[in-house]
Amino acid sequence: MDERMVFFISDQTGVTAETLGHSLLTQFNGQDFRQVTLPFIDSEDKAREAVARINRSAVDETHRPIVFSTLVQDELRRIIRSVDGLHLDIFDAFLAELGEELDQEPTNEPGRAHGMRDIDAYMKRIEATNFALANDDGGVSRNYSVADVILVGVSRSGKTPTCLYLAMQYGVYAANYPLTEEEFESGILPKVLAEHKHKLFGLTIAPDRLRQIRKERRSVGRYSTAQQVRFELREAEKLFKRFGIPYVDTTEFSIEEIASRILDSTGVERRVRP
Amino acid sequence: MDERMVFFISDQTGVTAETLGHSLLTQFNGQDFRQVTLPFIDSEDKAREAVARINRSAVDETHRPIVFSTLVQDELRRIIRSVDGLHLDIFDAFLAELGEELDQEPTNEPGRAHGMRDIDAYMKRIEATNFALANDDGGVSRNYSVADVILVGVSRSGKTPTCLYLAMQYGVYAANYPLTEEEFESGILPKVLAEHKHKLFGLTIAPDRLRQIRKERRSVGRYSTAQQVRFELREAEKLFKRFGIPYVDTTEFSIEEIASRILDSTGVERRVRP
Repeated sequence: MDERMVFFISDQTGVTAETLGHSLLTQFNGQDFRQVTLPFIDSEDKAREAVARINRSAVDETHRPIVFSTLVQDELRRIIRSVDGLHLDIFDAFLAELGEELDQEPTNEPGRAHGMRDIDAYMKRIEATNFALANDDGGVSRNYSVADVILVGVSRSGKTPTCLYLAMQYGVYAANYPLTEEEFESGILPKVLAEHKHKLFGLTIAPDRLRQIRKERRSVGRYSTAQQVRFELREAEKLFKRFGIPYVDTTEFSIEEIASRILDSTGVERRVRP
Repeated sequence: MDERMVFFISDQTGVTAETLGHSLLTQFNGQDFRQVTLPFIDSEDKAREAVARINRSAVDETHRPIVFSTLVQDELRRIIRSVDGLHLDIFDAFLAELGEELDQEPTNEPGRAHGMRDIDAYMKRIEATNFALANDDGGVSRNYSVADVILVGVSRSGKTPTCLYLAMQYGVYAANYPLTEEEFESGILPKVLAEHKHKLFGLTIAPDRLRQIRKERRSVGRYSTAQQVRFELREAEKLFKRFGIPYVDTTEFSIEEIASRILDSTGVERRVRP
């Protein structure tokens, strides 16, 4: 199968171009894309270098490259437009219409992090990340009174990455607590969780998938046996049902999806926006 | 100032719509936006509910709402198009052109995480996150031989969130090591770092900003005095220069920008893409 080169060009990090570009490319199955990000293209010289690089790559390939760009300066956009490939100018498509609606010209300044609003957002995300780290895996802090949500589930069900993602993407205070033999035997929630029952959210996962994940970590011992994994998941789900804890099966979901479903289901508000 | 309602509608998490929408909105200064995400709009009923909700909100506002949507199904797009506001259909603008270029019809299936490629990406991001956690703050693992990059800098210069972001967004193995009195007094790098000098990347930050960040954490004591902060930053930058360690001033940057600049400057390859 022929590979198709895809470039993401941005005067900033390229995250916006990558995110949208990837969403669009997943709509075309069976194609093989080789993706390259060219960030911080913020001068005419750099834009011309980017075009030269892309055009060079195009010479060796069967198909012309696809170029996604998010550039705010007209002059840079004009340079990229000359590329020998399909150029999808993400900002061009929407900025004019949005400006008309808002009755304002776009500033055409790269959307850099600056000003107190952004510093405030930065601090909130850092604080939320520190909270997630201090309250990871039932950790010492157990500062659950300020938590927005407390994830519960068996080992390796996705609690830690989900908490970190909620913190870094949305500034949400997410703690997590692992369910173990202790809870399964007693059939009750520990006091520290029972006190905050309305904040609990459960994660579960298909047994085969959990086994696969656990084996990567520790390939021998009871931890990753089919029997143990099935037992733990069954008991965890029993607890979720007994105490009316909402939960989600993470088997088919990416971290972004799990995080988004938790916010959607709990109504917890984002403290910052990407 | 009048507030303007902004809705992000998606058949998935809404992250793509939020990311692009936010990039575009930052081009219009001085406007006050109230942002609401409506994720998992994946049926005609839900699409109609979303339209009703947006139209209700529009009644009380001076200006009509702005709606960004990423929906792959034509029928759902058609329903959202009827909304009483400015509708920016992100996929509609690009899918046709991309399909023509690739000589393939888009699948029109929501771009869900599925298949081994996505499980593989999930595992890589989790493993990289575990690596970052185990190798945080010069932590016990010090498994630097498999690190892609090792961030060095004084306390609170942004090392931990940057490592976590590199792991979660790109699957990159990033460790971090705090520079302290020990290194400043000796003027040399500890052996554990010297052995991996080509992987080191420094973070620095403006003294005032660092003081502000440290004060949030611990408001009394030497840790956040102007003198101490200036001393540490000066000494850290001396070390960077003495040992030819590339570094970046994070003062004006978001976590995304710091991460992106590190990849751009070091040439470390993304192991997964968003």
